[in-house]
Amino acid sequence: MTQVFNFSAGPAMMPKAVLEQAQKELLNWQGQHTSVMEVSHRGKLFMEMITEAEQNFRQLYRIPSNYKILFLQGGARGQFAAIPMNLLNKKGKALYLTSGHWSSTAAKEARLFGTIDEINILEQSETLSVKTLYFRDIADQYDYVHYCPNETISGVEIFDLPDVGDTPLVADMSSNILSRKIDISKFGLIYAGAQKNLGPAGITIVIVREDLIGDARSSTPSIWNYEIQSKSDSMINTPPTFAWYLCSLVFKHLLALGGVKEIAQRNLAKANLLYQYLDQSCFYRNNVAKTNRSLMNVTFTTGNDELNAKFVAEATACGLQALKGHKVLGGMRASIYNAMPMAGVEALINFMRKFEAENSSEQGIV
Amino acid sequence: MTQVFNFSAGPAMMPKAVLEQAQKELLNWQGQHTSVMEVSHRGKLFMEMITEAEQNFRQLYRIPSNYKILFLQGGARGQFAAIPMNLLNKKGKALYLTSGHWSSTAAKEARLFGTIDEINILEQSETLSVKTLYFRDIADQYDYVHYCPNETISGVEIFDLPDVGDTPLVADMSSNILSRKIDISKFGLIYAGAQKNLGPAGITIVIVREDLIGDARSSTPSIWNYEIQSKSDSMINTPPTFAWYLCSLVFKHLLALGGVKEIAQRNLAKANLLYQYLDQSCFYRNNVAKTNRSLMNVTFTTGNDELNAKFVAEATACGLQALKGHKVLGGMRASIYNAMPMAGVEALINFMRKFEAENSSEQGIV
Repeated sequence: MTQVFNFSAGPAMMPKAVLEQAQKELLNWQGQHTSVMEVSHRGKLFMEMITEAEQNFRQLYRIPSNYKILFLQGGARGQFAAIPMNLLNKKGKALYLTSGHWSSTAAKEARLFGTIDEINILEQSETLSVKTLYFRDIADQYDYVHYCPNETISGVEIFDLPDVGDTPLVADMSSNILSRKIDISKFGLIYAGAQKNLGPAGITIVIVREDLIGDARSSTPSIWNYEIQSKSDSMINTPPTFAWYLCSLVFKHLLALGGVKEIAQRNLAKANLLYQYLDQSCFYRNNVAKTNRSLMNVTFTTGNDELNAKFVAEATACGLQALKGHKVLGGMRASIYNAMPMAGVEALINFMRKFEAENSSEQGIV
Repeated sequence: MTQVFNFSAGPAMMPKAVLEQAQKELLNWQGQHTSVMEVSHRGKLFMEMITEAEQNFRQLYRIPSNYKILFLQGGARGQFAAIPMNLLNKKGKALYLTSGHWSSTAAKEARLFGTIDEINILEQSETLSVKTLYFRDIADQYDYVHYCPNETISGVEIFDLPDVGDTPLVADMSSNILSRKIDISKFGLIYAGAQKNLGPAGITIVIVREDLIGDARSSTPSIWNYEIQSKSDSMINTPPTFAWYLCSLVFKHLLALGGVKEIAQRNLAKANLLYQYLDQSCFYRNNVAKTNRSLMNVTFTTGNDELNAKFVAEATACGLQALKGHKVLGGMRASIYNAMPMAGVEALINFMRKFEAENSSEQGIV
């Protein structure tokens, strides 16, 4: 068995072509006979690389010129703190829309720095769905409105934009950045840990509208002060150079594939195939409303803990890795980020079909 | 030209054997047919790896069992903020001993979080030296005393320990961690960005005495709250898994070489050879007092900016990379961290000898 597909929720699968290039030049980058991780971040070649990386990322995601792009350390969880430190500065209050674990955790961390109002936007009936996202009437009392458009644990994705009027909208896109086209100009700030769709763990991208920069509280650590980092090319200190380099390779790879338009089509096709299979099956079920089914994290269960465990064990033995659902929810979860090929989803469905045939009598279906 | 030596101050040279292993298993780690950067940080194999890494690091550096070891994000500059947030909690004041750029920068960042007294311990006469480090009489008014035992820009290293009585001593060892034996029990906290002696940029090690954990201010970001991270195996969020993996390989590599005792001998031999050459030369000079000459960063100059630039250019062409001194000081700097082999220092001295012979007439020496 050498063909494996890794459905890990993050750190997640990376494009094989990117890993192969990294492997090839690991000891000899740009003909320097040294590794990219051994060179100065302020050296000419490294600076050229990150300049090109930013240009490619801007092109991929159509980022308007009045947005800065920062490459930081600390993960999305670091930004859970950095965002209120930088943005909670005029009205002293922010609104957090919560739809699951990650948006709630962001709200909890933000409370360390100020007054946070929280509105649960998740509707739990037979299926999980997201309520109407109209907040225009209350948003102007807040410095910003925060939400997480894709919750990895439950597999709930929010496709509509919250209507917050002129208040800056802040989004944790760790798990769906670059997965489909979005209108950046509708956001004040977008952030994402890299380890799902951008590169390896250890680097965090912040896309922030220029007018939101420059009013951080004085006790903001320098490495998370958007003004300081923006003026220092994200290099107020030594950046995670190797992770940055890998992101640069991922951006090039995505552009070569046809950009976000092409990626979005592939992601939609992968998710549709899997959800269609789930919907026709009486053996498995997914409990997210169709309008909010995540294109990135597909959750499903047999409804039987023992059978779920058997599924995960047998799938792993067949090279379908990391399908165990998050401990909070149980069941299974297939994370199918940008780097997951259609062949991985097809292999998963083939396995699911076989497992269903072998085990459906235990469920009393046959 | 394929034999190059990289004298970068950081990110710096890494052990070639470590890079070769990383290259070999980049797409297939532990027979998983997946990269180490693609697997879950909470998975069995990754957890086993970090457990072994901590054991090896404890063994290498003889870290007593009442010290926790944290693997964090944000670099030493992140810790410049995290340390006062975690430790400035009883007396509300800390003392920073400053001996150059990095210790001063640490003090400046700490001021964002409380009252910082600063004492300049650098003596600048004909040579740079460090004053007597007796602070026992004043130390008990402070929550901690901070210093930087190796200043990379000037090449000043402090071999004596500041005498601070029972007040916790905090040291930024980014540039000399694992370079020689130290008595950990004399310190309250030691921290280091990895990119000089431990691994790649993007991971930071904190060694902290247990009794100093647990009293962070409430507005400490979770990822830098020592109590939270200590209880979460440094995994309150997704850690920089690939950087951590590389550190684990470096630890194994150093143990196989004979541990810190052997490394320290090698480092001393390398530095002695280079300083002895500098001292007998009338062409180059180093202006640090012999008692404070860094074993890690050897600074030197011809005393002539044009000649220095020529030196750096010609050295680079000969495969001796990154010898340009920091812009604050000019001249040259050879960073000879753990991973620099003796052959690199010998190659540098051979080049220096040749350059001296070819250029000393310009200096009016011949």
